[in-house]
Amino acid sequence: MTLQPVLIAGEWRKSVHEATFTAENPATRSAANSDAYPVSSWADCDAALTAAAEAAVLLRTTPASQLAAFLEDFAARIEGAAADLVAMAHLETGLPVRPRLAEAELPRTANQLRQAAVAARTAAWQLPTIDVKAGIRSALAPIGPVWVFGPNNFPFAFNSVAGGDFAAAVAAGNPVIAKANTSHPGTSRLLAELAFAAVKHAGLPPASVQLLYRTSHADGARAVADPRTAAIGYTGSRHAGLALKTAADAAGKPIYLELSSINPVLILPGALAERPADLVNEFVGSALMGCGQFCTNPGLVLLVAGKPTDDFIQAVGQRFGSAPGGTLLSKAVATSLAASVQKLTAAGAKIVVGGESGQGAGYSFANTLLRISAAQFIRQPEVFQTEAFGNVSLLVVAENEAELAGIVDALEGNLTGTVYSDTRGADDATYDHVVASLRQKVGRLLNDRMPTGVAVSPAMNHGGPYPATGHPGFTAVGIPASLRRFAMLQCFDQVRANRLPPLLQDANPLGAWRLVDGNWTQDPIGTSGK
Amino acid sequence: MTLQPVLIAGEWRKSVHEATFTAENPATRSAANSDAYPVSSWADCDAALTAAAEAAVLLRTTPASQLAAFLEDFAARIEGAAADLVAMAHLETGLPVRPRLAEAELPRTANQLRQAAVAARTAAWQLPTIDVKAGIRSALAPIGPVWVFGPNNFPFAFNSVAGGDFAAAVAAGNPVIAKANTSHPGTSRLLAELAFAAVKHAGLPPASVQLLYRTSHADGARAVADPRTAAIGYTGSRHAGLALKTAADAAGKPIYLELSSINPVLILPGALAERPADLVNEFVGSALMGCGQFCTNPGLVLLVAGKPTDDFIQAVGQRFGSAPGGTLLSKAVATSLAASVQKLTAAGAKIVVGGESGQGAGYSFANTLLRISAAQFIRQPEVFQTEAFGNVSLLVVAENEAELAGIVDALEGNLTGTVYSDTRGADDATYDHVVASLRQKVGRLLNDRMPTGVAVSPAMNHGGPYPATGHPGFTAVGIPASLRRFAMLQCFDQVRANRLPPLLQDANPLGAWRLVDGNWTQDPIGTSGK
Repeated sequence: MTLQPVLIAGEWRKSVHEATFTAENPATRSAANSDAYPVSSWADCDAALTAAAEAAVLLRTTPASQLAAFLEDFAARIEGAAADLVAMAHLETGLPVRPRLAEAELPRTANQLRQAAVAARTAAWQLPTIDVKAGIRSALAPIGPVWVFGPNNFPFAFNSVAGGDFAAAVAAGNPVIAKANTSHPGTSRLLAELAFAAVKHAGLPPASVQLLYRTSHADGARAVADPRTAAIGYTGSRHAGLALKTAADAAGKPIYLELSSINPVLILPGALAERPADLVNEFVGSALMGCGQFCTNPGLVLLVAGKPTDDFIQAVGQRFGSAPGGTLLSKAVATSLAASVQKLTAAGAKIVVGGESGQGAGYSFANTLLRISAAQFIRQPEVFQTEAFGNVSLLVVAENEAELAGIVDALEGNLTGTVYSDTRGADDATYDHVVASLRQKVGRLLNDRMPTGVAVSPAMNHGGPYPATGHPGFTAVGIPASLRRFAMLQCFDQVRANRLPPLLQDANPLGAWRLVDGNWTQDPIGTSGK
Repeated sequence: MTLQPVLIAGEWRKSVHEATFTAENPATRSAANSDAYPVSSWADCDAALTAAAEAAVLLRTTPASQLAAFLEDFAARIEGAAADLVAMAHLETGLPVRPRLAEAELPRTANQLRQAAVAARTAAWQLPTIDVKAGIRSALAPIGPVWVFGPNNFPFAFNSVAGGDFAAAVAAGNPVIAKANTSHPGTSRLLAELAFAAVKHAGLPPASVQLLYRTSHADGARAVADPRTAAIGYTGSRHAGLALKTAADAAGKPIYLELSSINPVLILPGALAERPADLVNEFVGSALMGCGQFCTNPGLVLLVAGKPTDDFIQAVGQRFGSAPGGTLLSKAVATSLAASVQKLTAAGAKIVVGGESGQGAGYSFANTLLRISAAQFIRQPEVFQTEAFGNVSLLVVAENEAELAGIVDALEGNLTGTVYSDTRGADDATYDHVVASLRQKVGRLLNDRMPTGVAVSPAMNHGGPYPATGHPGFTAVGIPASLRRFAMLQCFDQVRANRLPPLLQDANPLGAWRLVDGNWTQDPIGTSGK
């Protein structure tokens, strides 16, 4: 068994480690590969922080075009190594090779890196603002070393050393210290090797990208609060995320968290009457996609009692019962999912179908549909908003539309909220009523489409009110907005023209969109170089 | 003595209070007026929160033009009542009637409200972003009830019921619960009366503006963490601000803090050789302005040893010694200032001039200049970054420019950083060296001008890294950016055209600047209403 080195300060070096761990193939419960990975001690964190702080100084004056070239080259390298990456990720996560890993997630990851490159090159994230007469100019600018903690469920697209937070932090001019998700260390290692090769090729400071596999919880908290740390991006469980948030908050460090979300879906009576079969298909497809292990999985469905709802539940139950269960990402996911179902049923949820752990070689759980009444939900809204991360959904059946609105009022913050309604307008009054409340509780409101598709669009919001995230003003997906998380606002007041950064110079050498005296323009200012 | 009522839920009502307090005239140490003010119990906070939550629902669908009309009417009412406001503020704060209160701060306050009105009307703060092909549209939107805690030093321009945070929160469509600064309750009452009259005139929900005078610290912490609270704006002391931050962070509430700042000013040797008299004048004027009680007061001056520096210190010392001391804002300010000077001298700072509390009728302190070496600073950087809020500045004399850079490296986050340099370029190498570090530590970098002027410009940043503020990405001054603190990001994914808010509709009925498919434009989208 080979103990893999960590990537610190521009070299793959032996970790100063406290322990080791291995990667498990969740489909077989056997080793995913022949490697061991270090649990770094504080010495590794300390060395990475020092190197990142030094890289941050250099990156501040690195042309954005060089950052963009790095991101694009890294994207190409990922595509070039697709076969190896997909094979490793498949072994470590149990996610299907096709279409999921090879045809969806890997291309998306390369696409995100390329979009981030464009944002870096055009400075589209920096909101340059110029008051010509007052002699004051400002823009968002790099913040400094960023820790990225990636989740278990997207080994490429949210990987700490290749995914959305990574792309955003680097495109904004910051060095990244990636903390691999411990369920796919091999995939993270391969991606870090590609990233580091691209770093060298682009001539970036060697410590622009660093990788640790794991630390103790105490060292993680210490790391995010360290004076050399500037900001943190975290995607994962609520419990671990809130522990990091407490440490970061106390030290005054901006931390951007994407935590749990149950993504309420409201199916209004008119929609169910109008297109029952479509709704069954769409819901089952979304709920079981990736074995339910999406941040935007529709975990809570709100319905109004009646024959169409009974039929819907019966049809979905049949489909859940007959669909293959799929493999869960890890033992931890399987354990947590079983515990969540136990908690929900103990509180009174009735099992429509499923409810049992799987008996196969891998970690699995029967596709599970649970059901409660609106009255039950309202009595214990906290318990019934327990996230069951995996292929489990909870249906809540209201007696009428007023009860439906009452459920919405009791929801906590979520990434998404979805409303299906009659296309001819029969549900419009109910829609207006429930959306007035729902709109404030979710980052993304959908009509007539399940929430599991998260387009990498400039208009996307993959965020939402606490506790879905740590701040409702920011998004983790959607470029250029996602870059603004890893930025500080810098104002230049009467700073001499020759000392301004290119983005704020009269000539606008980057051709950026800038807010000049209240209007957005790509034009230079005047002709006098004042 | 009249016990003043609080403004809750659209009426001036008797407070459910725990105690009372009075306003003191700091120039005479006698009562500023014949009123008493309540220390509200939790019952008042609870009632205000319930009313604010209800107002927030209505405000979300209130046209921005109506918010703008309110802000403009309020500005006009402030100007109409200027004589009374200035008289009251003068009695409560000791700040001069002219030019400070009547000619500078009150007009600035009205101007801020009018700028906020323009931002509301044009939606300039919302960053509307449209991906036409993907059917995804997003924008910043109102967040909900906002608590505003105003500071002692600007009874108008940062007043919790009329100042910058108030204007930003309301212009962004949120109800405000103002917590008056307890050193000027009468001024806050007069402003709240004007605001409430304007609320009624504009037809806003009556609880759009509410006022409490004071609460216990425990109730303050409970209020910011309450589920009905959406966000908090705080300007004031570091100690009280961090206590609120701890409570807000634990509840996942965005809190924007403007805390202490010592605003380092670097005077490079070439500048001092070139224009010594100007520098003495500029520094003395800025340091003693408002008796030094500005957030951006130049509290720390960094110099390089030599004859010009000796001359500068001698000249400033003479000017400090002969200038009138001025009245401090309150007993608390006087006590805190004396304690800070005691702390600095105990750590080894040498008194060039001043150092004693004043002996007059009011609260005062002798204009005070302290001096240390760079070596002293580097040995105890924390102690020597103690804010002395008032007419006290600390000079640090470095042996050479390398030492100067060492001091900059040891600075914590500040609102501003200023560098004076030779206009002909003699200091350019030093400038580049020190600014590489200074730039990351301050929100606003100035050249050749003292930091005490804070223009209300779209490009202004009145913010900076922790602990100057709670988040380096936001500014408390500068419209429209300051409004973005009190916002959540709302995405509309496949939402039907007739359900989109006006800001995101194809026709662009507001004529707003929008980022459509990567370009900023005020044009409508297509002509088909798709």
